[in-house]
Amino acid sequence: MAAGPLETILNPSSIALAGASNNMSKMGTIQMLNLIDSGFPGEIMPVHPRESVVLGKKAYPAIADLPYAPDLAILVVPTALVPGMLEDFGKLGTRHAIIITAGFKETGEEGMGLERRIIEIARNHGIRFLGPNCLGIVNTHLPLNVTVAPILGYGGGLSLASQSGTYIAQTVHFLRRNGIVLGTAVSVGNEADIDITDCLEYLGQDEYTKAIGLYIEGIRDAGRFLRVARRVSRDKPIVAQYVGGTEAGARSGSSHTGAIAGPDYIYDGLFEQAGIIRVDTIEEVYRFGWALATQPPLRGPRIAVLTNSGGPGSGIATTLNAAGLEVPEFSDTVREQVSQFLPGHASARNPVDLTFHIDMKALTVKIPEILFSDDGIDGVIIHGIMDTGFMDLLYPSVSKHMDVTREQFLKYGEISLDELVAMPCAYGKPLLISSFFDTSDHCVRLFHKHSIPTFDSPEKAAKAMWALYKHCLFRQRSASTPAKSTRVTIPAQAREIFSNRSRTGMDEYAAKQLLKAYGIPTTDEFLAASREDALKAARRLGFPVAVKACSPLISHKTEHGLVFLDVENEDAVSRAFDAIRAYDPDAQVLVAEMLRGKREFMAGVSYHPGFPPCVMFGLGGVFAEAHRDFAIRLAPLSREDAREMIESLHARTLLGNYRSMEEVDMDALADILVRLGDIALDFPGIKEIDLNPIIIAGGAPKVADSLMIIP
Amino acid sequence: MAAGPLETILNPSSIALAGASNNMSKMGTIQMLNLIDSGFPGEIMPVHPRESVVLGKKAYPAIADLPYAPDLAILVVPTALVPGMLEDFGKLGTRHAIIITAGFKETGEEGMGLERRIIEIARNHGIRFLGPNCLGIVNTHLPLNVTVAPILGYGGGLSLASQSGTYIAQTVHFLRRNGIVLGTAVSVGNEADIDITDCLEYLGQDEYTKAIGLYIEGIRDAGRFLRVARRVSRDKPIVAQYVGGTEAGARSGSSHTGAIAGPDYIYDGLFEQAGIIRVDTIEEVYRFGWALATQPPLRGPRIAVLTNSGGPGSGIATTLNAAGLEVPEFSDTVREQVSQFLPGHASARNPVDLTFHIDMKALTVKIPEILFSDDGIDGVIIHGIMDTGFMDLLYPSVSKHMDVTREQFLKYGEISLDELVAMPCAYGKPLLISSFFDTSDHCVRLFHKHSIPTFDSPEKAAKAMWALYKHCLFRQRSASTPAKSTRVTIPAQAREIFSNRSRTGMDEYAAKQLLKAYGIPTTDEFLAASREDALKAARRLGFPVAVKACSPLISHKTEHGLVFLDVENEDAVSRAFDAIRAYDPDAQVLVAEMLRGKREFMAGVSYHPGFPPCVMFGLGGVFAEAHRDFAIRLAPLSREDAREMIESLHARTLLGNYRSMEEVDMDALADILVRLGDIALDFPGIKEIDLNPIIIAGGAPKVADSLMIIP
Repeated sequence: MAAGPLETILNPSSIALAGASNNMSKMGTIQMLNLIDSGFPGEIMPVHPRESVVLGKKAYPAIADLPYAPDLAILVVPTALVPGMLEDFGKLGTRHAIIITAGFKETGEEGMGLERRIIEIARNHGIRFLGPNCLGIVNTHLPLNVTVAPILGYGGGLSLASQSGTYIAQTVHFLRRNGIVLGTAVSVGNEADIDITDCLEYLGQDEYTKAIGLYIEGIRDAGRFLRVARRVSRDKPIVAQYVGGTEAGARSGSSHTGAIAGPDYIYDGLFEQAGIIRVDTIEEVYRFGWALATQPPLRGPRIAVLTNSGGPGSGIATTLNAAGLEVPEFSDTVREQVSQFLPGHASARNPVDLTFHIDMKALTVKIPEILFSDDGIDGVIIHGIMDTGFMDLLYPSVSKHMDVTREQFLKYGEISLDELVAMPCAYGKPLLISSFFDTSDHCVRLFHKHSIPTFDSPEKAAKAMWALYKHCLFRQRSASTPAKSTRVTIPAQAREIFSNRSRTGMDEYAAKQLLKAYGIPTTDEFLAASREDALKAARRLGFPVAVKACSPLISHKTEHGLVFLDVENEDAVSRAFDAIRAYDPDAQVLVAEMLRGKREFMAGVSYHPGFPPCVMFGLGGVFAEAHRDFAIRLAPLSREDAREMIESLHARTLLGNYRSMEEVDMDALADILVRLGDIALDFPGIKEIDLNPIIIAGGAPKVADSLMIIP
Repeated sequence: MAAGPLETILNPSSIALAGASNNMSKMGTIQMLNLIDSGFPGEIMPVHPRESVVLGKKAYPAIADLPYAPDLAILVVPTALVPGMLEDFGKLGTRHAIIITAGFKETGEEGMGLERRIIEIARNHGIRFLGPNCLGIVNTHLPLNVTVAPILGYGGGLSLASQSGTYIAQTVHFLRRNGIVLGTAVSVGNEADIDITDCLEYLGQDEYTKAIGLYIEGIRDAGRFLRVARRVSRDKPIVAQYVGGTEAGARSGSSHTGAIAGPDYIYDGLFEQAGIIRVDTIEEVYRFGWALATQPPLRGPRIAVLTNSGGPGSGIATTLNAAGLEVPEFSDTVREQVSQFLPGHASARNPVDLTFHIDMKALTVKIPEILFSDDGIDGVIIHGIMDTGFMDLLYPSVSKHMDVTREQFLKYGEISLDELVAMPCAYGKPLLISSFFDTSDHCVRLFHKHSIPTFDSPEKAAKAMWALYKHCLFRQRSASTPAKSTRVTIPAQAREIFSNRSRTGMDEYAAKQLLKAYGIPTTDEFLAASREDALKAARRLGFPVAVKACSPLISHKTEHGLVFLDVENEDAVSRAFDAIRAYDPDAQVLVAEMLRGKREFMAGVSYHPGFPPCVMFGLGGVFAEAHRDFAIRLAPLSREDAREMIESLHARTLLGNYRSMEEVDMDALADILVRLGDIALDFPGIKEIDLNPIIIAGGAPKVADSLMIIP
């Protein structure tokens, strides 16, 4: 892959920064302070109209005065100055910039105009840039930091791309106390040029990045995002939070970075399809991301839980189960081995509960060794390891009865975790730690030092294990079926049907013919121009039949009494035909086979700004709206995408041998969804497609009604 | 209310403790150390066979040697010694005990026997006790602490009752760094005598307790728990975690305290009915409990969000929305008022985003004042307040360019929060704070000092606001309808039907007659002993009718072809009658009206150990099992319980004017559920009741089929 603009932006050899001064309360100053102190190995050149020295560095009065074109220009100046300065950098020959300054698209019409201007200037000069309205970048490997907070930890495997600057720059306390260390972090702001998908692509091939965290308010090209994420997630876990899926979330995002949000369910579909682990909180982006970045991949769902307390053990066990993981009973061998290290009343079942037990060796070495080496266990969670944190609590009382200094007392209590911290790597299985203690506990510090994730409550460790499991499932999926497109060229017949549509649009018959051209099974049916035609058709199909008005101009045909089902004989066909013609003398009449089947599904295509056509699949029938049981995937769909969306239905048991009904032909059903996506891509003129109901007759799905709207 | 045993246990004037020594690594010793250092104002008397002085206190070689009967005996001795020592304390006259020692019911048969023995000894001497297998108690108001960790904060309004000792004794670091202070905390262990319901009852009337947190692995008398919780939750918020609802959770709980767990959904129903806020993690028990204990009640769903960053603002907004709260657009007046304190590019909409802005006064006083005083806002969440935590990050860099000591620099940065922390009380509205900083930040310390809850990530603050809202809804409910039982005496007719049932059980006809006796609407129907009877019945009912075999001995009558629906004429009735008699010459034949209605529900009663009969209501019909859309409440149900369970269905829109169908008569439907609960209570001999389907015909629910099993 050719080095993209982020390669230079994150690894420049020289930086010019406009907006820093010697006034310590200014944002630009703070950023330059952090840049200097980050240990950035290149040259830093401040631009300032009056100061000759800024924070100890020679300053230049104007961009034109710089001795050479820096690799990277950073602007933290008043909004109105941005276009001119960007122009000046362009003239000088700088080709990469970060525009921190806000006041653009996110503020409304005027700002939007200003943003268009800087895009144009950048284009004229071949400048690639981050922002505007962003908070900069961090690369702890170079190192380089131009955010408002210093780097507190260097060289971590978790990298971030975020539509909020706060999440790369103002959570350092949170990260430090949880032992989380970032690698690269990029604040993308308004994404006038470089966007979060570019960052994902960059981080995907960045050798230091082991896992990627994303904070998303809206994706502007979901199709491209999907293609990139799908590729990246095959090797590297991606965990993402999307906040635009509610009314207030969308409003907030739009004020923040001018993002265009979409409904929550299309992001559910996008993330599943892309192999992205979706979470609901930024805490989970960090914590799960850290677990994914540091631990060996989980290879299966079987987790051993080891604690010194039944409460946390139960909380972990139940959270794992609820998330679809297993807490299997141990084999007899494991149980026997474990038992020898337990007090009499303790439980050697899974979870193992040592109870209040002072033998830390059992908790930290002996039992973990047994669990890690057992083939029936894929991952381990331990709660209850502690030393000085607990000792320190006791010291004030103990010191009244023992002649010992605090330091001696704590030193005496310190335990070694050398063996335990080596186990994940040695056995190739993840280890997660739950502890209510903080870094005042020497064990917590040891875990942090060795990049073993710690969680400040038991259920969080369990939920993080779910994230590892989700990645395991994604990896299995991409290993088994490469996400290749199965698209074919547009069938000639389909083109013909589409171009021959009546001036008023596509009627049900034409829509179904189009579906047929793509191999989608639909009811057998005929268009009847006369009563005699209708009778002939009914005879050919066999009774009972369905008789319906067929015209793109008649909507709500059921409500108008223009759909006759279970038409049993010729008389009834004639009556139905006459009734339709009485309503509209020009209406065509469709005579169709009557499908028998209790199970009804529906499929359709919905359209959202920034998204390719979205294929929807769900329960059909009269009560479909009440159940709201459906899933979304973006076109084009792979066969595997289609199967997964079908199987993600809440009522998925309907697909099997439900109440002695025949199993649904899943291949046929998946094929309908794949082809439906192709149709939407092949005919962008269509703006709505509904196949409802799709009736399962004898296990085979068939489209009984179809609507296509072409505005 | 008379003072229960917990009154004495939590407020004793003298304590004897057996199991402490001068060996600092023993659990009993640590507990005595903590007891002494807690500041307990009463007398402490260690019992030790050899030591004459334990931890500086005169020790007694045997219980019989104690100078008087202590109010409270605490046992931390080997399991085998417990019965004898309890006996000795009983003889001495002590009437309250805490048995910390483990090795009882939770270990299996033998332990179970030992537990029965101590129950008997206690009963003989009138001793009330906590445990065994518990971790003691904390009362930070007295103060008194016999757990393994010292008290780190005194006098908080959050009290706990827990089936895990860890959660009252080993989370002190977690609590301290989050500013959470407990009032009373009780570890109930195996609940051989005093159980978690007793604790709830005690805490309900404890004047210091403002909110109650529960950790539950299983409730042994759910009926009593419901009654107590329902009463308590009217005044005090209760937040609870239940972990026994999965296979591994149940297994873990059973090894831990011998708890008998039940399926998750019955606890869902129990908690809803009891007015208990259910959470999934112990962190939420603490955090939400603390918010509930310290903040004024939330009076409505409208939340204002104020931040200095769009990311956290969006995360809070979307989490609030997803949880059913509102983030309303401000009135023009509020927006104008807020705008004057914002930089030009910032958003005065809700969430307010000050962006990276140094004017802390806007964030801490000016804008909060506007939001708190607006009638359109019920509660406030703020993210971004900070002072020394941020300054401290900058100091290493700044100090290179400024001649200032760290202390001076931090002192200079400290801000006052006096006005803000007074607002919740002054305006009667809750305030929750989100901050990534920890107690190294002076603002975080100030919030903790003034009992304003802080959350270490934005979404958590939003979720805590949901807990306040849930309590608001529970309070509104109990204000509008006192949860009074509407039970009536058993209808004489019902008794008769029940006692006249055939030797082989209740058939469908008898079951429906019983329902009718309670006023539950069922199909009109007749039992036919002859073909002529059947024809007469059909004529009276009018065609079409349903004809079914009616016998408690024939199960799966549909599968055996013994149910004939839509029987249109006399011939068909005769054929149906004959077919049933051909299958079983002794079978009775039921001729019933044929109900017309697309919407089908089902109701039933399920039975679980420790629970009163549980009334179930859900979607009926062929696809019911696939949808799994149902709710549970414990009998007896109030009318309000019944309505809530109906409205809790996922597909609740079916109840309204769905697709031009008539609205369901909710009173009639609720009445069915209330009466169904009564039947289950009145006739404990019945072990299964199913009303399926309940068909909605013309808006009115009617039971079309019913099954009652009497083993």
